[in-house]
Amino acid sequence: MQIRVGLVGGTGYTGVELLRLLAGHPQAHLVQVTSRAEAGLRVDALFQSLRGRIDLCFSEPDPKTLAAQCDLVFFATPHGVAMDMAPALLDAGVKVIDLGADFRLRDPACFAQWYGMAHRATDWLAKAVYGLPETRRAQIRQAQLVANPGCYPTATQLGFLPLIEAGWVDLGALIADVKSGVSGAGRVPKLNVLYSEAADSMSAYGVSGHRHRPEIEQELSDCAGMPVPLTFTPHLTPMIRGIHATLYARLRQDVDIHEIQALYQARYQHEPFVDIMPIHAHPETRSVRGSNLCRIALHQPRPGQLVILSVIDNLVKGAAGQAVQNMNLMFDLAETTGLDILPLMP
Amino acid sequence: MQIRVGLVGGTGYTGVELLRLLAGHPQAHLVQVTSRAEAGLRVDALFQSLRGRIDLCFSEPDPKTLAAQCDLVFFATPHGVAMDMAPALLDAGVKVIDLGADFRLRDPACFAQWYGMAHRATDWLAKAVYGLPETRRAQIRQAQLVANPGCYPTATQLGFLPLIEAGWVDLGALIADVKSGVSGAGRVPKLNVLYSEAADSMSAYGVSGHRHRPEIEQELSDCAGMPVPLTFTPHLTPMIRGIHATLYARLRQDVDIHEIQALYQARYQHEPFVDIMPIHAHPETRSVRGSNLCRIALHQPRPGQLVILSVIDNLVKGAAGQAVQNMNLMFDLAETTGLDILPLMP
Amino acid sequence: MQIRVGLVGGTGYTGVELLRLLAGHPQAHLVQVTSRAEAGLRVDALFQSLRGRIDLCFSEPDPKTLAAQCDLVFFATPHGVAMDMAPALLDAGVKVIDLGADFRLRDPACFAQWYGMAHRATDWLAKAVYGLPETRRAQIRQAQLVANPGCYPTATQLGFLPLIEAGWVDLGALIADVKSGVSGAGRVPKLNVLYSEAADSMSAYGVSGHRHRPEIEQELSDCAGMPVPLTFTPHLTPMIRGIHATLYARLRQDVDIHEIQALYQARYQHEPFVDIMPIHAHPETRSVRGSNLCRIALHQPRPGQLVILSVIDNLVKGAAGQAVQNMNLMFDLAETTGLDILPLMP
Amino acid sequence: MQIRVGLVGGTGYTGVELLRLLAGHPQAHLVQVTSRAEAGLRVDALFQSLRGRIDLCFSEPDPKTLAAQCDLVFFATPHGVAMDMAPALLDAGVKVIDLGADFRLRDPACFAQWYGMAHRATDWLAKAVYGLPETRRAQIRQAQLVANPGCYPTATQLGFLPLIEAGWVDLGALIADVKSGVSGAGRVPKLNVLYSEAADSMSAYGVSGHRHRPEIEQELSDCAGMPVPLTFTPHLTPMIRGIHATLYARLRQDVDIHEIQALYQARYQHEPFVDIMPIHAHPETRSVRGSNLCRIALHQPRPGQLVILSVIDNLVKGAAGQAVQNMNLMFDLAETTGLDILPLMP
Repeated sequence: MQIRVGLVGGTGYTGVELLRLLAGHPQAHLVQVTSRAEAGLRVDALFQSLRGRIDLCFSEPDPKTLAAQCDLVFFATPHGVAMDMAPALLDAGVKVIDLGADFRLRDPACFAQWYGMAHRATDWLAKAVYGLPETRRAQIRQAQLVANPGCYPTATQLGFLPLIEAGWVDLGALIADVKSGVSGAGRVPKLNVLYSEAADSMSAYGVSGHRHRPEIEQELSDCAGMPVPLTFTPHLTPMIRGIHATLYARLRQDVDIHEIQALYQARYQHEPFVDIMPIHAHPETRSVRGSNLCRIALHQPRPGQLVILSVIDNLVKGAAGQAVQNMNLMFDLAETTGLDILPLMP
Repeated sequence: MQIRVGLVGGTGYTGVELLRLLAGHPQAHLVQVTSRAEAGLRVDALFQSLRGRIDLCFSEPDPKTLAAQCDLVFFATPHGVAMDMAPALLDAGVKVIDLGADFRLRDPACFAQWYGMAHRATDWLAKAVYGLPETRRAQIRQAQLVANPGCYPTATQLGFLPLIEAGWVDLGALIADVKSGVSGAGRVPKLNVLYSEAADSMSAYGVSGHRHRPEIEQELSDCAGMPVPLTFTPHLTPMIRGIHATLYARLRQDVDIHEIQALYQARYQHEPFVDIMPIHAHPETRSVRGSNLCRIALHQPRPGQLVILSVIDNLVKGAAGQAVQNMNLMFDLAETTGLDILPLMP
Repeated sequence: MQIRVGLVGGTGYTGVELLRLLAGHPQAHLVQVTSRAEAGLRVDALFQSLRGRIDLCFSEPDPKTLAAQCDLVFFATPHGVAMDMAPALLDAGVKVIDLGADFRLRDPACFAQWYGMAHRATDWLAKAVYGLPETRRAQIRQAQLVANPGCYPTATQLGFLPLIEAGWVDLGALIADVKSGVSGAGRVPKLNVLYSEAADSMSAYGVSGHRHRPEIEQELSDCAGMPVPLTFTPHLTPMIRGIHATLYARLRQDVDIHEIQALYQARYQHEPFVDIMPIHAHPETRSVRGSNLCRIALHQPRPGQLVILSVIDNLVKGAAGQAVQNMNLMFDLAETTGLDILPLMP
Repeated sequence: MQIRVGLVGGTGYTGVELLRLLAGHPQAHLVQVTSRAEAGLRVDALFQSLRGRIDLCFSEPDPKTLAAQCDLVFFATPHGVAMDMAPALLDAGVKVIDLGADFRLRDPACFAQWYGMAHRATDWLAKAVYGLPETRRAQIRQAQLVANPGCYPTATQLGFLPLIEAGWVDLGALIADVKSGVSGAGRVPKLNVLYSEAADSMSAYGVSGHRHRPEIEQELSDCAGMPVPLTFTPHLTPMIRGIHATLYARLRQDVDIHEIQALYQARYQHEPFVDIMPIHAHPETRSVRGSNLCRIALHQPRPGQLVILSVIDNLVKGAAGQAVQNMNLMFDLAETTGLDILPLMP
């Protein structure tokens, strides 16, 4: 089977990463890559890395052409774009995976609060499935519209989930201290992500409030069956790719770290992309660079205090790779198809 | 007044940083730099950056010569060296500042536990003053032996101190998630700090136990008048210099962030090297690069939860700069002498 | 067909990169990875990136076992190892690809001069084939022993070859100003390649003499049919992977850059891993990161002066990828088997 | 004596670097920093590193106020600004140092060709002095308007000058292969200098033509008394600061490298900021980081072929530091005043 695939917004980092993955996917046939700004330009003129692998030009985004030519359309666009353009495609029967934020927050008011605009496709919002396969695999298989999770939310949720499902932690005391590579800020010319600004330095940002916090809280609350607040501190780190989530939880009862290790291993034993490392290991972000993996390790530095280390590549498991994983699920392919990529180390 | 200064162990990063600062200090006269491994070699043959500024060769460390020639000797050596060599100097009336760990932990048993060797100078250990000017200025002025604090402990203590002194936080719930540049690991050929290992990646290390934790706990406990445990998570970050401490505290009572801001400003208003930034600021490690400053900013993302951001240059305020600050105090110089260096940005 | 493959020296960067490529190669079956230092340790305990992909422990190198189990043995060892151990394997009929320097220089005296040791396998040296497929494909297909080229030599030769074959340049005036990522220095704990030494700085090294110069001169001289001297200036660049060769040639006759562009395109039109970019393009090393590609672009800033830009990934086309390409040729597989990897960008 | 100083254009990297140097200069009194875009904002709100050191807000640039308040005005502006605004200041008797390109090329036609605009202050252009103290010290002392050299031109000229003055090289065969840190591209939000674009990669740019080439050719031609063409290849290097110029020259006569070394040492023996290193040394860009130094080393890899390595900090000796050096000369201060800064290493 060949899936005819379109990509709306092919000039950002999640877009070009998706192009890398799709070019190596045996059953994806890329038929269109759109970009208003670059329409007419060859894709490989913008991205040298794709020379010889993508033989297309950027085109103007046009819902009709997309609907006619595609079985699936990915949106790798700033928020606000997919909710305007996706409904026409969905109504025409096309499947959609949105790598942006438009369909991640189920509550339109919450969306409006964090993204500064009213939601303009609330009916489809209600039908969207949050695309974290480790929690919603069955729904994703049936979905027509998948909201691909954010990068911080993926690393954070995978790190906390088993504990919350087991009910072993104080739900009021969760802390996520997360560090992201600079590509997480997008391929957008902003001063703060210039090389000379971001290199050889580190800083936190959005400490008093960041858009990924309500997304994580929504999902963890779903999992817990009750509201789960989160202290969430993102940091800009001088590396290109990678998220390192350092997660803090207080244990509610006297469980041993070996029990917790067993819990995590059991929870993820059939997950193709989650690797539980030995107790006291220290996963490096580069150990997943370019791959769809999440590696997790557990520590208990003091009685009652658990530290969970969770790393992903923000552009793969945190974006384009997870999107391909969702595509595979939606089209009944083996879940790892096209994602069998070894991390690039060093 | 000229202070005749010797440096034992001049080939590491704290050593070469001390050479930079001493070469620009108007009242320090460097008379000897020792190194067993490099004895005979010109200092500026090892460090191009010092060409034209240091006209000495490394010499074999010899306590007699040092005692005869120096008013003050800095030790920038691995643990175990200063406790063997410093006593002879101290007995001869020389002042000593140890940038290593030998005299930081007051309890010899604790030292033995964390550093894997018995303490061999316990009488001098009892007389040593912990050299954090912001807490022990008066004692440092009178001290003959100063134990210069570690880098993580400096950033962490300065961030937590006002809160602990005020008694406003739950002392059982302190968390320090700290990120260090690679120079903190020293100028030692180890695999994990090779460029190709440490660049473009991030990882935690020593999560289950790190030598700086008991040092911080000792000092915070002193300050609180009761034992203060700490969850302490260090990370290796791909930058040369800099420490970013992200500190989490639970407030014990309903205080407003503005009251806390006022508390910090009052506590540090006369400190020449502590800069309290506006509420909700995000200090960057590069904003203190090469300088002796510590910048701190406060956030309260949720009621009852305080996040304190504290940054220093690990080689300056976290090592050599603080040592010079201590020297200035011990010799009755203006505390900022030779430390009036602007951060290098970008 | 499955090729039973052994790897002697699996702990360096060329070794671990070969492991990455072999783990993804459909017809290579890795049966042994040796390391004296790490014998007994799981390979994926040393390299987190290989968790779940390589299920072997390092073993002691033993020629008999290797000869019994392997069709092909790669050596990714310091010079001096392969020439001692490979002959026994070769005599037993095993094929060998040496990623080190032992069989690159045909003249034993030249080898002795540059590598500081007498050659101890001169008979096999005489039979070795220099493994640059773009110049010696037919011989490689028949070879039992292939000397895999160095990284600088690969980028430099591919950049100069068409010009020299065409006889269009002054052979006495060739200059190669080459810049390498730090991984080219190997996974060896040396001071000068520490993160804090190599980051945020650049320097030349070996300007008065570097081992890769005689290798390039040997091959270019072969190509020209007369001695070709080279001015060769290597630089250490703060990046993990990548070689950027900036090559200078004086044109002997009045040829137009468009003719030269046509020459290069014709010369490499059937080469799967050489990409001639448009005139005046500027290839980026990241555009080949993780892939076996070499990208080349031509400039003529002044009449008679040609500047050729040639980039490769030093660990792939400059080492492990080229070795797999040679393996494919030696075992009659499609030359691109297992090398169909897209560059990782950003 | 206090010099009342104004800075037009204080938001770029040369501007903020000038602020760092002026804040530490004992005789410069900064009275105004202008920026159209940031007028009204505190300078230290934009640049954390200047907190506590610069107590000014950005103001609208106004020639009348500047003329009334300043003895000297620096322009750190894009080309085209100084030539419009400086004449009014100059006519009012104020001294001007332009860190931009407006007054570097003496030939207005050449300026128009490379900068894409007609020169609008040709009378002042005729009076401007090119501010390289090592070649024009006496003129700079008398100048009212100084054109501060570009970064590449400074490193390249200092490397070539003694050879050209001595007449020992083939003037038709000079090649400058130069590598620059990313800050050389300015503090401007452009895609190609984003962290995720520029990190961990290297590329040449402007190989077929770059604005600094005519500037270098003009000055070298002046020095030679005849036209000197240059092959000039700039590269973008993943580091914040630093220029590494690798210069190639053919010797016209059979001179020994020791004679050339003696020539360089004699030529620069009284220069406070030029350091001739031992023969065969390899200067590192970090060895001058943050300082006004240029370090040079010589190599002769083949008979007749000289390789000169020349490194500077592009923002200091390549911009703001050289500007302060020029200020010192123009106001009869000791040339090193305020520039006695040790390089920051590591």
